[in-house]
Amino acid sequence: MNGHAVESGSHLTQAGIEAAKTMAHEESAIKELDASELKITRATAPRVVPEVNSKEVFDMKTCTDHMVKVTWTRDEGWHAPEIEQYGPLTMMPIASCLHYATQCFEGMKVYRGYDGKLRLFRPDKNCARLNMSSARVALPQFDPVELGKLMKKFLGIDGPKWLPKSRPGTFLYLRPAIIGNGSEIGVTAPAEVLLFMVAVLWPDFSAPRPGTKPAPPGLKLLASKNDTRAWPGGFGYAKVGANYGPAFVAHMEGRKLGYDQILWLLGPEHHVTEAGASNFFVVWKTKQGALQLVTAPLEGKIILEGVTRGSVLELARERLIEGSKYLTPEVGSIEIVERQYTMPEIVEASKEGRLVEAFVAGTAYFITPVSAINFKDEEIEIPMGDDGSSGHYAALIKKWLRDIMYGNVDHKWGVVIDEE
Amino acid sequence: MNGHAVESGSHLTQAGIEAAKTMAHEESAIKELDASELKITRATAPRVVPEVNSKEVFDMKTCTDHMVKVTWTRDEGWHAPEIEQYGPLTMMPIASCLHYATQCFEGMKVYRGYDGKLRLFRPDKNCARLNMSSARVALPQFDPVELGKLMKKFLGIDGPKWLPKSRPGTFLYLRPAIIGNGSEIGVTAPAEVLLFMVAVLWPDFSAPRPGTKPAPPGLKLLASKNDTRAWPGGFGYAKVGANYGPAFVAHMEGRKLGYDQILWLLGPEHHVTEAGASNFFVVWKTKQGALQLVTAPLEGKIILEGVTRGSVLELARERLIEGSKYLTPEVGSIEIVERQYTMPEIVEASKEGRLVEAFVAGTAYFITPVSAINFKDEEIEIPMGDDGSSGHYAALIKKWLRDIMYGNVDHKWGVVIDEE
Repeated sequence: MNGHAVESGSHLTQAGIEAAKTMAHEESAIKELDASELKITRATAPRVVPEVNSKEVFDMKTCTDHMVKVTWTRDEGWHAPEIEQYGPLTMMPIASCLHYATQCFEGMKVYRGYDGKLRLFRPDKNCARLNMSSARVALPQFDPVELGKLMKKFLGIDGPKWLPKSRPGTFLYLRPAIIGNGSEIGVTAPAEVLLFMVAVLWPDFSAPRPGTKPAPPGLKLLASKNDTRAWPGGFGYAKVGANYGPAFVAHMEGRKLGYDQILWLLGPEHHVTEAGASNFFVVWKTKQGALQLVTAPLEGKIILEGVTRGSVLELARERLIEGSKYLTPEVGSIEIVERQYTMPEIVEASKEGRLVEAFVAGTAYFITPVSAINFKDEEIEIPMGDDGSSGHYAALIKKWLRDIMYGNVDHKWGVVIDEE
Repeated sequence: MNGHAVESGSHLTQAGIEAAKTMAHEESAIKELDASELKITRATAPRVVPEVNSKEVFDMKTCTDHMVKVTWTRDEGWHAPEIEQYGPLTMMPIASCLHYATQCFEGMKVYRGYDGKLRLFRPDKNCARLNMSSARVALPQFDPVELGKLMKKFLGIDGPKWLPKSRPGTFLYLRPAIIGNGSEIGVTAPAEVLLFMVAVLWPDFSAPRPGTKPAPPGLKLLASKNDTRAWPGGFGYAKVGANYGPAFVAHMEGRKLGYDQILWLLGPEHHVTEAGASNFFVVWKTKQGALQLVTAPLEGKIILEGVTRGSVLELARERLIEGSKYLTPEVGSIEIVERQYTMPEIVEASKEGRLVEAFVAGTAYFITPVSAINFKDEEIEIPMGDDGSSGHYAALIKKWLRDIMYGNVDHKWGVVIDEE
């Protein structure tokens, strides 16, 4: 409310003032998320850190010693955050999150730098997106800055052991999530919610799983035929569980046919949207000869606003311009284009020899080149650079991002964590 | 495989026969769901049954004494089913169902008949639909007949106490569900799954919540403006969590504006699909004067194939025909139409005085008349019968269904449960 209105000469009646006071009181009773209230209970059964890219890590079942938990209730708001030993969650079988997908999450990585420091990459972006996703599935709002503080505190505790300085160039996967976990089966916004955060041992997907041969470089994508990931008026832009489970069947069918990911198309014109759970970029020459880096736009709320996607675009717009010191003999200046584009455009570019390269961008798969797309049972080959390992733009942008993540360069996007 | 091929003269080599044997062995190692393996552990802390439509019941947090649990693993298939005391589920924070909405459920009711018997209504339909929903979110398949057996056994134990013979005409809500609950954060089909089933004390939504005034009869619907519930290539036809949580925000906005449910429209032509979490029916006269009962079609896989919806259509097709003994002075024969239809058609029918009535049909809201629809900020009034409580078709069909559910008539859809 507007404070001025309560001053003398206000049109508020006494009853109105009382009502305003009552409201203010009620509002203050609903507590905000407050990282300064954090309670820490150390793990009593710490575990052994597995080897990098070991089978255990590829199984993606191992978390670090601790986890963050914060309860929210409709009546009281956010309770005091806690860091405690990693362990099971308990909830009644009628918890909303198990039936109605009242759940959202973030995917981030924490990096052990070559300079020995621990870093997050643009954590403010993920914290803000989690808040947005939470609202989309009727879960509560919070101050993203406070979540960022909890994240740093958590990683300050588990980072030194689980991402040791003896392993520069490695990372952990960080998974914050919010779920409606109260005992209530009503089809409505949950009255009790849990925000939690765990750190998972995560493989480098470009390395082979122990006991298997290295995969050829480059992802092979299968363009979706009947399944649609997201739709106008839907929730494709939010990182909510509802975007993932329903996509697994198409993904599994693709794997059976020898493809790594689904390239999600939309509508009768076959607009290109995302690849698997990553954003998708293509580099082509236009019919007029202009070199372009193209990706789907955020407008329409179909695709996820990937942090990696945004960073690729920002770096490209800053560095891939005429006269830039970052240009190389292989990588010249390029137009950056966010627009709706279609699979038939890619097919045409391929046929006319204008297709330069393509790659996916996201946290899980980072920057990974794409070597082929199957569209309507025809496979389009995509150039993979001179040595067949990656297109030049993908390789250069990947290097820039790695340099920031692992502290080879000092950059505002690399946020250093204070360690215990 | 075809058994004949293994006989003499077969083209199978010895190696092929060995391989077939191995496969057969592996297949037999994956166990099917088998209700005969049920283990029962009685509750040690049975609770008190609350009053019908009490505040506790309206809170929808109370379940009966027991629950069904069946574990499935990728390596072993379905484990032995268990009935045990109702209580919390435990899972690791990285369980798939908490992040990727690998979850599906059913909503059913069990009825205490006026003849003293306990009945389910067409449980085979729900068991089959759960199996279909499970497949849609990469969860395992099972024999629906076995699930039906578990359901009956469970209700045979908890029914006598929680739905006592002293309360004819009451019901419990039955909630079977399947979730990916193993410890694995990979974006893929879960390797460990839990099928569970609980029975919830459920209010009669047509009765007032204790301490509140009775609501006027008839639901007021707000036609969706920007949000879309389901789309071609999506999963609107499956009863998966992903269809629910993302719809809560629109529902809450509707409630704030004084509407009970969202009427979900699709596409630029505003096709009418579902209302809230129920199917939607309208009765109108065509411009040519034909009386029609109209609902959205299953083709296109946009709407849920409601058991109540199907039963309304079947009964209407059987009983609302010329010469039927079921016709009344108010309710004559009618054409039954499943087709795509639009909100502008309803508006036009209303303006031309051809709108007869409308109702929703589903398990939670059963058959409830609709009194108004807000479309593009204009409210369309819908006739509510002579006494303002319900249109005649809704009232008659509701009575037919209740008679089956509560044993006033003997009908194959009412499945009697053997009680302990």
